[in-house]
Amino acid sequence: MDLDTTPALLVDRDILDRNIARMAESARARGMSLRPHAKTHKCLEIARRQLDAGARGLTVATVAEAEVFAEAGVDDLFVAYPLWVDAARGARLRALAARVRLTVGIDSGTGARNLVEHAGTGIGVLVEVDSGHHRTGVPPEQAGAVAAAAHEAGLDMLGVFTFPGHSYAPGAPAGAARDESDALAAAAASVRATGIEPSVVSGGSSPTALLEVPTVTTELRPGVYVFGDAQQLELNTVTENEIALTAAATVVSARDDLVVLDAGSKVLGADRAAWATGYGRILGEPDARITALSEHHATVYWPDPSTRPGLGHRVRVIPNHVCNAVNLADELIVISEGAVVDTWRVAARGCTT
Amino acid sequence: MDLDTTPALLVDRDILDRNIARMAESARARGMSLRPHAKTHKCLEIARRQLDAGARGLTVATVAEAEVFAEAGVDDLFVAYPLWVDAARGARLRALAARVRLTVGIDSGTGARNLVEHAGTGIGVLVEVDSGHHRTGVPPEQAGAVAAAAHEAGLDMLGVFTFPGHSYAPGAPAGAARDESDALAAAAASVRATGIEPSVVSGGSSPTALLEVPTVTTELRPGVYVFGDAQQLELNTVTENEIALTAAATVVSARDDLVVLDAGSKVLGADRAAWATGYGRILGEPDARITALSEHHATVYWPDPSTRPGLGHRVRVIPNHVCNAVNLADELIVISEGAVVDTWRVAARGCTT
Repeated sequence: MDLDTTPALLVDRDILDRNIARMAESARARGMSLRPHAKTHKCLEIARRQLDAGARGLTVATVAEAEVFAEAGVDDLFVAYPLWVDAARGARLRALAARVRLTVGIDSGTGARNLVEHAGTGIGVLVEVDSGHHRTGVPPEQAGAVAAAAHEAGLDMLGVFTFPGHSYAPGAPAGAARDESDALAAAAASVRATGIEPSVVSGGSSPTALLEVPTVTTELRPGVYVFGDAQQLELNTVTENEIALTAAATVVSARDDLVVLDAGSKVLGADRAAWATGYGRILGEPDARITALSEHHATVYWPDPSTRPGLGHRVRVIPNHVCNAVNLADELIVISEGAVVDTWRVAARGCTT
Repeated sequence: MDLDTTPALLVDRDILDRNIARMAESARARGMSLRPHAKTHKCLEIARRQLDAGARGLTVATVAEAEVFAEAGVDDLFVAYPLWVDAARGARLRALAARVRLTVGIDSGTGARNLVEHAGTGIGVLVEVDSGHHRTGVPPEQAGAVAAAAHEAGLDMLGVFTFPGHSYAPGAPAGAARDESDALAAAAASVRATGIEPSVVSGGSSPTALLEVPTVTTELRPGVYVFGDAQQLELNTVTENEIALTAAATVVSARDDLVVLDAGSKVLGADRAAWATGYGRILGEPDARITALSEHHATVYWPDPSTRPGLGHRVRVIPNHVCNAVNLADELIVISEGAVVDTWRVAARGCTT
């Protein structure tokens, strides 16, 4: 591969396109809309591929991400976050709402009134529901009360959404998918009981989005599925040949059964869930594990001496959590059939406001 | 404070200046050179303050960081990393060596010969020694062999360095400082035995740099000390009134004794050492803990109802590991006596190559 130097993030475009097509087909086959979460890739080129494959719009996490994709011509954006809106953010939301179909999350009547105070009423809202992750969102049976408050405040109350983040543990995805479905059904019923018909019932995480459970969901919002990562591998939601993003790294030091690579937490991110078996994996070497991670060093336990790379050799690392790895890079090197074919800018990198 | 929106990283300039002065005075009083690690701040304004306070040069982790500081006029740079040099990086090192006093790390004879092959001989080198962190570096008694190989390859063999990263655990700094001192003394003796006089014996991490142990060290390379962070708080190496960097964040959701803030791992970094009590701290609220962290959410257990902030209130978060937090931001908002006074660009953000 004609790659000048390491570390660098590589995207295998062929695998990426297969991942995008598979999720699009699955959603279509079940009659659901797909609104991929763009926080994972932050790239205009990948957003365009998702929309071309049939996505109805994008999900984003922040107003700043919405601004980047709106500027690039994406016209339907959902900020899946219970925003607290000050004067500055309110002005930005008004500007966005004037050019795209904009929806944002709320999880309290106070939040709904705050939104109207600073951003006006021309914005769609979905009530966030806690389906078991216990982060933001109200219990399903309280969704109606928040919806009624939002409606009363003058907002365009469109429905409910949840993120079943408790799907992120080994063996958990199937149960989390059922929780998600139950919570969304209860939340939709709670909204309907106030006289508002929820037109959007939005769910989905990459671990649960492909699971076929009976569901009232109308829309899916997976993010990580475009790339996959070591967390998804350890959840058994992807296989290694579905991993589209890796970090190219070089062996800079070696001793015994350990090799040290030049990709650390400033390239891979420092994510390590309690259940993770290491700080990342090595492509093609399933028994190797990153056992320690510094900012510019990954210490890899590499048990097989017959494949263990020596000083100066390059390997490809699978990050634990691809969203945080991508957000550290200014660009992604695009490969196809082993050759570098393009470079994509991480256009919304660092867009946290 | 006149801060438009959150999340944002704030630097308290008054505390920063005190931290810089304290370390400079401590090094001077012990007759040691100070070469602060600029990977922590990546800011030209902070580098300038360190040099003005008497630092003899800067330490960096990558060639790309060295390029940023060289471009800004810093003329003495040490890349504290056992670089593996390909043709592209070799050309960059030659260009750097032509304009600044450049030193790089090595930890093998192979690495030394690789360096000469691609970057020539006009570069100073220090042999990296493992003082107990077990990452890169050779055992102290092997330093002489690597030094001799570097000398034979034509490099300017200046001495030895170590990073006592095993200082990062509660109760560990004092023992790690002794290990560091012992390892450097043994390594210097090993080099001297080959007939080469080591002029630089370089050590120091923020947890150990201020500890007064008998030592042969001629140079200190702490990084985190400029800002402090929650890791240093939990190591008892700083107090809260020495914390110069915080993330301003807003409460976006709340229930019971939990509040959810809009600063997640894309602002704070995902670092959580095995011994850490959470994903970060809250300034002025020592009993609060970040118990869960997503990309844009920090879930904070806040036990005191009398101080617990409501929706829309702003708090200041102390990141666990400030180096990774800073590397996520494009700029730092500078405050002094509670007012915003400046904005500093994170000039070397993302410079991982």
